[in-house]
Amino acid sequence: MVRFEDVTTRLEGLAIEVPSWAYGNSGTRFKVFSTPGTPRTVEEKIDDAAQVHRFTGAAPTVALHIPWDEVDDYAALRRHAADQGVGLGTINSNTFQDDAYKFGSLTAADPAARRQAIDHHLRCLEIMGATGSRDLKIWLADGSNYPGQNDLRRRQDTLAESLAEIYAQLGDEQRLVLEYKFFEPAFYATDVPDWGTSYAQVAALGERAVVCLDTGHHAPGTNIEFIVMQLLRLGRLGAFDFNSRFYADDDLIVGAADPFQLFRILFEVVRGGGLDPAAGVAFMLDQCHNVEDKIPGQIRSVLNVQEMAARALLVDTDALAAAQAANDVLGANAVLMDAFYTDVRPHLAAWRESRGLPADPMAAFAASGYQHRIAADRVGGTQAGWGA
Amino acid sequence: MVRFEDVTTRLEGLAIEVPSWAYGNSGTRFKVFSTPGTPRTVEEKIDDAAQVHRFTGAAPTVALHIPWDEVDDYAALRRHAADQGVGLGTINSNTFQDDAYKFGSLTAADPAARRQAIDHHLRCLEIMGATGSRDLKIWLADGSNYPGQNDLRRRQDTLAESLAEIYAQLGDEQRLVLEYKFFEPAFYATDVPDWGTSYAQVAALGERAVVCLDTGHHAPGTNIEFIVMQLLRLGRLGAFDFNSRFYADDDLIVGAADPFQLFRILFEVVRGGGLDPAAGVAFMLDQCHNVEDKIPGQIRSVLNVQEMAARALLVDTDALAAAQAANDVLGANAVLMDAFYTDVRPHLAAWRESRGLPADPMAAFAASGYQHRIAADRVGGTQAGWGA
Amino acid sequence: MVRFEDVTTRLEGLAIEVPSWAYGNSGTRFKVFSTPGTPRTVEEKIDDAAQVHRFTGAAPTVALHIPWDEVDDYAALRRHAADQGVGLGTINSNTFQDDAYKFGSLTAADPAARRQAIDHHLRCLEIMGATGSRDLKIWLADGSNYPGQNDLRRRQDTLAESLAEIYAQLGDEQRLVLEYKFFEPAFYATDVPDWGTSYAQVAALGERAVVCLDTGHHAPGTNIEFIVMQLLRLGRLGAFDFNSRFYADDDLIVGAADPFQLFRILFEVVRGGGLDPAAGVAFMLDQCHNVEDKIPGQIRSVLNVQEMAARALLVDTDALAAAQAANDVLGANAVLMDAFYTDVRPHLAAWRESRGLPADPMAAFAASGYQHRIAADRVGGTQAGWGA
Amino acid sequence: MVRFEDVTTRLEGLAIEVPSWAYGNSGTRFKVFSTPGTPRTVEEKIDDAAQVHRFTGAAPTVALHIPWDEVDDYAALRRHAADQGVGLGTINSNTFQDDAYKFGSLTAADPAARRQAIDHHLRCLEIMGATGSRDLKIWLADGSNYPGQNDLRRRQDTLAESLAEIYAQLGDEQRLVLEYKFFEPAFYATDVPDWGTSYAQVAALGERAVVCLDTGHHAPGTNIEFIVMQLLRLGRLGAFDFNSRFYADDDLIVGAADPFQLFRILFEVVRGGGLDPAAGVAFMLDQCHNVEDKIPGQIRSVLNVQEMAARALLVDTDALAAAQAANDVLGANAVLMDAFYTDVRPHLAAWRESRGLPADPMAAFAASGYQHRIAADRVGGTQAGWGA
Repeated sequence: MVRFEDVTTRLEGLAIEVPSWAYGNSGTRFKVFSTPGTPRTVEEKIDDAAQVHRFTGAAPTVALHIPWDEVDDYAALRRHAADQGVGLGTINSNTFQDDAYKFGSLTAADPAARRQAIDHHLRCLEIMGATGSRDLKIWLADGSNYPGQNDLRRRQDTLAESLAEIYAQLGDEQRLVLEYKFFEPAFYATDVPDWGTSYAQVAALGERAVVCLDTGHHAPGTNIEFIVMQLLRLGRLGAFDFNSRFYADDDLIVGAADPFQLFRILFEVVRGGGLDPAAGVAFMLDQCHNVEDKIPGQIRSVLNVQEMAARALLVDTDALAAAQAANDVLGANAVLMDAFYTDVRPHLAAWRESRGLPADPMAAFAASGYQHRIAADRVGGTQAGWGA
Repeated sequence: MVRFEDVTTRLEGLAIEVPSWAYGNSGTRFKVFSTPGTPRTVEEKIDDAAQVHRFTGAAPTVALHIPWDEVDDYAALRRHAADQGVGLGTINSNTFQDDAYKFGSLTAADPAARRQAIDHHLRCLEIMGATGSRDLKIWLADGSNYPGQNDLRRRQDTLAESLAEIYAQLGDEQRLVLEYKFFEPAFYATDVPDWGTSYAQVAALGERAVVCLDTGHHAPGTNIEFIVMQLLRLGRLGAFDFNSRFYADDDLIVGAADPFQLFRILFEVVRGGGLDPAAGVAFMLDQCHNVEDKIPGQIRSVLNVQEMAARALLVDTDALAAAQAANDVLGANAVLMDAFYTDVRPHLAAWRESRGLPADPMAAFAASGYQHRIAADRVGGTQAGWGA
Repeated sequence: MVRFEDVTTRLEGLAIEVPSWAYGNSGTRFKVFSTPGTPRTVEEKIDDAAQVHRFTGAAPTVALHIPWDEVDDYAALRRHAADQGVGLGTINSNTFQDDAYKFGSLTAADPAARRQAIDHHLRCLEIMGATGSRDLKIWLADGSNYPGQNDLRRRQDTLAESLAEIYAQLGDEQRLVLEYKFFEPAFYATDVPDWGTSYAQVAALGERAVVCLDTGHHAPGTNIEFIVMQLLRLGRLGAFDFNSRFYADDDLIVGAADPFQLFRILFEVVRGGGLDPAAGVAFMLDQCHNVEDKIPGQIRSVLNVQEMAARALLVDTDALAAAQAANDVLGANAVLMDAFYTDVRPHLAAWRESRGLPADPMAAFAASGYQHRIAADRVGGTQAGWGA
Repeated sequence: MVRFEDVTTRLEGLAIEVPSWAYGNSGTRFKVFSTPGTPRTVEEKIDDAAQVHRFTGAAPTVALHIPWDEVDDYAALRRHAADQGVGLGTINSNTFQDDAYKFGSLTAADPAARRQAIDHHLRCLEIMGATGSRDLKIWLADGSNYPGQNDLRRRQDTLAESLAEIYAQLGDEQRLVLEYKFFEPAFYATDVPDWGTSYAQVAALGERAVVCLDTGHHAPGTNIEFIVMQLLRLGRLGAFDFNSRFYADDDLIVGAADPFQLFRILFEVVRGGGLDPAAGVAFMLDQCHNVEDKIPGQIRSVLNVQEMAARALLVDTDALAAAQAANDVLGANAVLMDAFYTDVRPHLAAWRESRGLPADPMAAFAASGYQHRIAADRVGGTQAGWGA
C-alpha cells in the first residue's frame, strides 16, 4: 500500500466548498426545526462557514444561493469573507421559490416565466463578476407531477434554447454547471433527470458547460462511481454536490449512509485525474442539517471527504493493476478493501497538527465556545432558511 | 365476466373518506404554492369536502387532523358538516409539528416529549367522543436520520408502552389505527417502517387495534396487494390511505401513477371480503394537490377508486378459479386483464344518473362555478396548510 | 378523442419482431422447466414464430441469436422462413456463454478474449449479409461482481476500440445497435449500464450506430418514456426490446406488469415520430416464457403492443396541447387517461377481421391444434434453450 | 471505546456455518462457469469446507442441501466430517428443482405436488435425526409470475397447513426455520416475501418455529438492521443467511457491497443479545462464487463476519447511551463510526496466532497448495452444482 506521507501533497490540494445555506435552517415538508444561533444574514452564514475552514483548513470557499444570499454590495461581501479567511465560490441560481415558476422555469411553456428565469441567470452572471466566481450552477426543479402535464420533448428543446441564451453570456473564465436530479420536487418527470440528459445538453452548448453530480440524485442502486468515471472520461465532470442518502435525496452528511460508496467515488476521482486542478472538478457539499448541529455537521462532512480521499489515495494501484490483469477477482478487491479498512485518522491528525491545525477539528470546535457565543449573540431577527 | 348490473349494490356500499387537509395548501420542502379560494377555516375545508360528495355521492365523511382542525365546539362543527351533507370521520393525530417532537413523540427518549405525545392522543380520543368518530389514526414521524442516533430496540419498547396507555382509554366502539411508513421525514430509520412492525404492535394491544396501509409508504417494488391480502387474512386491515407514487411518498392522485396496481389492490380487497362493512376497512384518501386544483383533484381521486373497484368487481371469479386450478397461467391472467381493460366509465355514468348524480362529476363541478365563487369570496385571512 | 378509423393505417405499419429464443426453454438460475413441443432446431423455432404472424399479422420477422441459431446454409434458412410467411430480422450476437468470456468480451483485459469477441461480431456481419438483416444488436454481459475487479475506465476505452473495429466493417445498409443494461449477470458494475453510456459510445462511432432500449434494463423508478423521448430527440433510438418487469430484468410479457407505463412509452414513440418508418426504430420482443405457454405468450405480447399503440394513437393531441399550454394539470392528464381507458379491443377485433385475420388471435391459435400437434410430433432430440 | 482484549471471548463464541453448495459451481441464468478442482461429491464439498475452518477456526459446521447432498449413509458422512474437523449443520430442503414444483410446492394448488413437498420435508427431518442437525431451513421458490396466476390468499392458507404438518413432526430439539424472499424466481408474487409473512406463519406454528433472515432478500433501501432488532425483540430470529447485494439477490461475499450495513446488522445482533448462545441465532453463509475462487471466497466471508463482529463489539455502549439520552445526534453517530473505522485486522491477526491459527488465513490457504492439489486430483466425474 502507498505510504501516507506520499499522499499529503495531493490531500493538501483537496478543497471542499461549503454551501451558505447549510448554516440556515432546513427541514422536510413536515417541519423545519429552528436552532439557537442560526444566522440571520449572509454575513453570519459566511462567519459560520469560516469556522469550518478555520478548524479543517480544507474548506476555503463558500457557495452562494441567489436570491437567498442577495446583498446590495457584493464587493463588500467579498471583503467580509476575505476578512474571515474564506473566499466566495460558486453561484447557485434558484428558480423554484417564486410563484412564477409553479409550472417550470427554463423549460416553461409560459414565455413570461421562462423570460424571468433566463433573466435571473443573467443576473447571476453579473453577480459572479462581482464575486469573482467561476461557476454558475443550475439545478432546476422543473418537471411535472402527472403524465401528460407537460410535453416532455418540447420542454427539452425549450431547455436547450434557454441554456444557449445563458451560455452565450458566460465570461471566458466562467462555466455553466448543469445539475441533474432523478425526482423531487417533480414526482412524475424531471426535465434533467439523469447524467445522460445533462451531458447531452451541455455537450450541445460548448466546452465551458459541464455536469454537476449530486451524490443523492440517482435511482436506487445506481453505480455512481461509474458515472464519475464516464464523465471524467468524456471531459464533462464539472462539480460534485456531496451528501448521502438511504432512500431519496436525503441530503445527509456525506459518507454517513454508505462510506464504502464514498470511497469508491473518490477512488474513481483519483483514477480519472479528477484531483488534478487542471481537471476543474469542484468539490462541494450540499446537505441539510435538519436535526443535527450545523457547523459541526459541516466540519464532519469536510473531514469525511478528506479522510476518504486519503484512503482512496492509499490504494496500491500497481498491485491493483496486476491483480486486474490476472483476473484475480479476490486479489483485486482485496487491494481496494485494504485501503478502505486502513485507519487513516491518526495519520491525518498528525498531519493536521504539522500544518498548525487542530488534530481533532470536531473537538476543537466544540471547545472553542463559538456555538454558545452565537446562540447568545444572535437574538432577534429572522433566521435564515430556504425561504430567504 | 360479471355484468355491471350485478355489482352496483356493492359499489353503492363503497364510501371513500376525504381528508380535510387536502383542501388546504401543500407542497414540498422546496415550495408550497398557494391558490385562490383555499380555505381559511375548518368549516371552509368541510364546505369544499362536501362538494366532492355532492358530485360523486361516494365521499360521505371528512377526516380531521388535530391540531390543524382544532375548534372550540366540535358539536357545532358536526352540525356544520351535517348541514353540508357530510359527516365527520377519522381523527388523525399529529405529533410532528411541535418543536417538542424533534427527536420523537410516542417513542421519544425524553419523558416530557413522550408525555406530551400521549396526552395529545388522549385529547384526540376526547374529540372523537364529540365528533362521533370511530377511528384514531396514528402516523408517527418518529425515527432517526443517522445510525446510532437512537436505540432502535428501546424505541420499539417505548412505543409499545405508549400505545398501550392510549389503547387503554379507547371507548368500546373506538379503534386505534396504526399507520406505517418506509421513510420520511426520518432518513435512516423509521420507528414503524413496515406492515410487520405495525402488525406486531397492534396485535400486542388487542382486537380494536388495526393497521393502516398507505399505498405510498413502501419500498420500491413492494407487492402491496400481497400485504392487503395478508392483513385481511390476519384480521388487521383497518384502513387505507389511498394515493399514488412514482418514486417516494409522492402523494399523487390515487391511480395516477399505476392504475393496474390500484386494480390489483382493489381486487384483493374484494377477494378478502374487505368491501363487506363487517370487515371494518376504512377507505380514505391521503394526497397532496401541490400543483393541481384541489377539489377536482379530490373528485378525480374518488372516481378513480370507484371506477377501479367496479373493474375489480367485474372479475369473473369462477373463470379465474378454474384457470388457477388448471395452472393455466395465461388464462388466469387474461381473466384479470379482461376486467381491467373493460371501459366501465359509460356504465358508471348511467348508474350515477340513475341515482340523481351527475354522469360526469368532473364536468359538473367545473360547470357549477363553485371554484370561481370561493376564489372570489375567500379574500383575506390565512390560507390553511400543513402548519395550521 | 381521435377515431379508431383514423389510426388504422399507422397501426398497419407497426411490425413487431419476435425473437427465435422465445420459443425455446428458458428459466432462472434455479431451474429451467421444459415443455412438450419445444423446438429442437432453428427451423422449428421459425415455424413457431410464423404462427404468431399467422394469427396476428403483426410479427413479420424473426430475430436470430448467434451462435444459438447458427446453421450451415443461411440462404436455405431464409427460404424456410419465407415459406412460412416470415422474414429473418436482427442478428443478436452472444458473447456470454463461452468460457473465454468469463471476465469480459469486447471489454476484456485479455487480448485473446477480446479478439474472439470481435471476430464473433465480424462473423455476425457476414451472416447478416446472408440473411439480409439490417441490424447487428450487441448486448454485453461484460462487467464485474466486485469493486476493484476491473478498471472501469480502461474497460470503457477498450469497448470503444472494439466497437470501432466492428463498426468499420458495417455495410452501408447495416446498423450497429448497442443495448444497455443496469445489472445482471454482473452484480457490481456493468460496462454499458445506462442509456447515457450507450449514447456516448454510439455517438462516437457514427450515424449508423444507435441505441437499443430494453424496457426491463433500468433502475427501479426510472422514467423510461423520458429516455424514449430523449433518444428520439437525439436521433439515436434504434430499437426496443420489449418485455416487462416488477423487480429486476424479469422478462415478463410486455405490458403485463405495468400497462400504463407501456402506454406512456408508446405515446412518446408516437409523439417523437418513432412510428414513422423513416425513424428506423425496430420494435422487438425479448422475453422469457418460463412458466407460461410460449407461442400464446408471444401472441399475447404482440397484441399487447398493438393494443397499446392503438390507445397511444387515440390521444387527442390538440386537446392535450391546449391543456398543456394552459397549465391545466388535471385536464392534460385526463386527455391521456381517456385514451388509456378506452377499450380498443372490439375495434381491433373488427379491424383484424376486415383484414382476413382472426378477431381473437389467442382463441384462434388455441383452436388451431398447433400446440398439440407439435407436442405430439416433436419427440426426441434436444429441446432448444439458452445453451443452444 | 471498548478494548479488543475484552471482546475476544465473545468473538470465540461466534461460529459461522458454511453451505456445502458454495463449493460447487454456481452462476446466473446466462452461464455457469466451471472451475478446476470443483467437488464431485458431498464428501469433497465437506473437505473443502473443512479448509475454511482449518484456516479461520470460525466455521465449525457445514450446512447440507437435500437432495443435492443426499447420501446413502448419513452416519458415515457425519464421521467423514468429524474426521475433517467439522460437523454437519442445518438441513436445507429443496422444492424448486423438480418438474413437479413448477407451480408451487408447499403452497401448490395441486395436491400431488403439495404432498410431494411435504413428504420431502418429512424426509429432511429423518435425515436431521441421522446428521444430528437442529434446524430444518425452508426456503420456498413458490410464487407466481403474473397477476391472477395464483389465488394469493389460498396459497397463504395452504402454506400454513403444510407447515403445520411438518412442524408436528419436529423433534423436541429441532426447529423449523422459515426464510423469506422479496422476489426470484417468482417475478410477480412470492408466497413468503417479507419478514412479516414469515413471522406471522411461524408464530402460528409454535415456539420452535423461527425466521431466517437472508441479507439479500429485501426490497431496495430496506433497513435490515431494523428487522434484526424487531425479530430479536419478538424472539423469532432463528438464523442469518449472510451474503451481500448491490441490486437484487446477488449472493456476493458478505460485506463486499456495503460493509457499513454489515456493521449495523452485527451491532443490532450484539445489542439484542443475538451473540448469546441461548438466543439460538444461527449464523450462516449463503453465497454464490460465480467468478471468484470458492474456498478463498468462503474464507474471506468468514473473516468479514468475524472482523465486523469485532468492530460491533468495540462500540462504547455507555458513551452511545449517554449521547442518545442527550439527543446528541452527531455524538451518538460518532460513537458508532469510531468503532467502524477502527482497524481491527492487526488485533485479529495477533489473536488468531495466539490460538494457533494463521494470522492471515487468506495467505495461509494460498500458501497451502490445497487449491492446486484438488485441481490436479479431481479429474473426471461430474462437478457439483445446483443441479446436483
